[in-house]
Amino acid sequence: MTRKMHLVGILATSPTIHHSGAWRHPASQNRITDPNWWADLAREYESACYDGVFFGDSPIIDTSERTARGGQAAYLDPSPLAMVMAGATKHLGIGITISTSLIPPYAIARSLQTMNVLTGGRIAWNIVTSTGKKEAECFGMDDLLPRNERYDMADEVVEACCKLWDSFGEGALLADKESGIYVDTDKLTDFDYTGKYVRTKGPLPVPPSAQGRPVLMQAGASERGRNFAARWAEMIFTLQNDLPEMQAFYADVKGRITKEGRDPADCAILAAVDPIVGETKAIALEKQRYVNNLVDDDMAIAHASRHLGVDLNQFPMDKPLEDLDIENGTVGSFEVMRNASKSKGLTLIELCRSFSISESCPQLAGTPEQVADAMCEMFEKKGCDGFIISPAAMPGSIEEFNRMVVPILQERGLFRTAYEGTTLRASLKAS
Amino acid sequence: MTRKMHLVGILATSPTIHHSGAWRHPASQNRITDPNWWADLAREYESACYDGVFFGDSPIIDTSERTARGGQAAYLDPSPLAMVMAGATKHLGIGITISTSLIPPYAIARSLQTMNVLTGGRIAWNIVTSTGKKEAECFGMDDLLPRNERYDMADEVVEACCKLWDSFGEGALLADKESGIYVDTDKLTDFDYTGKYVRTKGPLPVPPSAQGRPVLMQAGASERGRNFAARWAEMIFTLQNDLPEMQAFYADVKGRITKEGRDPADCAILAAVDPIVGETKAIALEKQRYVNNLVDDDMAIAHASRHLGVDLNQFPMDKPLEDLDIENGTVGSFEVMRNASKSKGLTLIELCRSFSISESCPQLAGTPEQVADAMCEMFEKKGCDGFIISPAAMPGSIEEFNRMVVPILQERGLFRTAYEGTTLRASLKAS
Repeated sequence: MTRKMHLVGILATSPTIHHSGAWRHPASQNRITDPNWWADLAREYESACYDGVFFGDSPIIDTSERTARGGQAAYLDPSPLAMVMAGATKHLGIGITISTSLIPPYAIARSLQTMNVLTGGRIAWNIVTSTGKKEAECFGMDDLLPRNERYDMADEVVEACCKLWDSFGEGALLADKESGIYVDTDKLTDFDYTGKYVRTKGPLPVPPSAQGRPVLMQAGASERGRNFAARWAEMIFTLQNDLPEMQAFYADVKGRITKEGRDPADCAILAAVDPIVGETKAIALEKQRYVNNLVDDDMAIAHASRHLGVDLNQFPMDKPLEDLDIENGTVGSFEVMRNASKSKGLTLIELCRSFSISESCPQLAGTPEQVADAMCEMFEKKGCDGFIISPAAMPGSIEEFNRMVVPILQERGLFRTAYEGTTLRASLKAS
Repeated sequence: MTRKMHLVGILATSPTIHHSGAWRHPASQNRITDPNWWADLAREYESACYDGVFFGDSPIIDTSERTARGGQAAYLDPSPLAMVMAGATKHLGIGITISTSLIPPYAIARSLQTMNVLTGGRIAWNIVTSTGKKEAECFGMDDLLPRNERYDMADEVVEACCKLWDSFGEGALLADKESGIYVDTDKLTDFDYTGKYVRTKGPLPVPPSAQGRPVLMQAGASERGRNFAARWAEMIFTLQNDLPEMQAFYADVKGRITKEGRDPADCAILAAVDPIVGETKAIALEKQRYVNNLVDDDMAIAHASRHLGVDLNQFPMDKPLEDLDIENGTVGSFEVMRNASKSKGLTLIELCRSFSISESCPQLAGTPEQVADAMCEMFEKKGCDGFIISPAAMPGSIEEFNRMVVPILQERGLFRTAYEGTTLRASLKAS
């Protein structure tokens, strides 16, 4: 049987997702406060048989973004939106970003498992550890923990959540009117979790969903982040500049998963791509130029700053990134940016512009066949198990991709034409 | 113009709401994990023109409840459910209980305002301060603050949330493709909030909803709780044994609201009632006996324990409540129970049974006209501005009440036949 790829759409409650200028495109609607818009989008992804969608998220708007005229914050909490999208669909998985540094495990576990139950087992948790002092301050702390310790804490938070999810046994919810037993409390597990960073107690009174626990998803690219992903993730989202980088990441992380004693097939590694589809190659290239010219420098700097967790306005714009003394921030994003900077010989402003177009993930500009070919090559040459589709204009670009490219992937037998099961985990396990 | 009453339905993701035996009633469905059930319920309340519904909530299952075979915990997080119910309706308000002792203000403000935006301004926050050490432990703390200090902290949390909600100015979300301004950052307010108990920072990047901030709702019955409600609440939910108690509470709290410099008309005081409607008085009384016999002693003790925040199993069951040395726990519930205990001369077990039938709120058993008469008297004699309808069997009892009693209230011109506006605040302000 042919190995099948997975497709997941990335969403954000911000003007755009990876492309900081695309919200100005004529096919961008920017109707983020309209629940009907999100419901329509959900149906769009489900009709194309995507495994799921997920919301990138950062709960704050920081100073560098303010100078960029509000270009890059997330303007809504993704959890209520997930319920809107779930209400419009039956199979689509929905991933929600929640930071292990900001929210206590009991609250995370309760909220995600409730959504998981109500959606019939379609929820994923995109686990992040946060970047930047202001997020911590908004949530009442002095600062985040140092970078590596944030992952140590995340290990505890995820471990505690898993214990909470497992503490409500299958079949415990009886509601037996005759005997008067509502819940069989023998199937609930009492426990105390006492880690170095977090404490909690079970049982969590939320029944398991059709897929048991939520699917765990992660995007860490640093050494520590990769190990964290290897331990926990069932779905990994990665931003790599090109196929060789993807292949290196794929081999490395699959190796780490094996070392953790897990089956590498139990974790789907998905690479982000930004497809730009035209009826002809010339049209696609012209569309690419058009949308990339919508980025302005303020937004570009703000966008890159947000992803690094460092305000880049403080550095000279005419020097390359690798010369700068950037202490804190996100290691993974820094490495991706440094690779791009070095290989293309970019100054900081050029790098910001380039990064804010697609965050270094490949723009695949071409005819439907050419885009499909590029994706097939990445998939078949073990660059990934599938893709995070990161469209520029929303919903314009995703509609073009779904109309013109997805059918080709399906005709080639590389992508499903109907859902295999009802849960997100069932979709991810299908191959 | 006749003064109009407000109706709000109380819901819980537990077997029942105030009546601990009613889940065993033949007209109780107990389909709490089925989103379609909640959507149908939402339509039931909206078709009867209720101002809204709200979810009581406690995020934990404690030891005394476990001995009661899972009878009284809340089994789902109410926030995702609120989105399910909102998706099925256009006007119905939805209140969500969140504890100021457990969740940081930034997380509360972001989540509630997002729901508020996506529902077109239909969200209320039922503000609670939590009871019992285990809730604190589940959320990683040693214990809750002492009772009065919990309200001091709640004052800060609500103040911080209001600042966060006000920090995103009306009209700031422009998404102006021409100028490249997504958000007019001049309309965002930076601020630092540093209280004794909580800290946070603005702006919160969530736009205001059609009703601005969420509606604030509260149920505190203690001295400190009443002052808190007088300062903040736009809707107060109260459990009182009878009309004289309701009148005393009503006069007292309206006086406190005036002292706070607010217009007493800006806060609706709603008294809980448990209507039991029969075609004849005899049928209603027989129905009342039937449903009240469904309570068993274990559940009754667990139910009362949960509401007091104290495990009553440790006390002798044959003594009256007022003789017992109950140190911690919920003052308001204790007072309501002590009043009932004294006036009826009950032992602890008798009190538990009585409390677990309707939590001391009046059971109004009678014909449709008799139930309507009783409600009209409470409303017209200034016992309340409307009612929290706390039905026994779900959805059976609420359907009976909506079919048989609501039309009488409407015919008498005391309750709306169509919504006055689109937001919850508009419904509450209508009179």
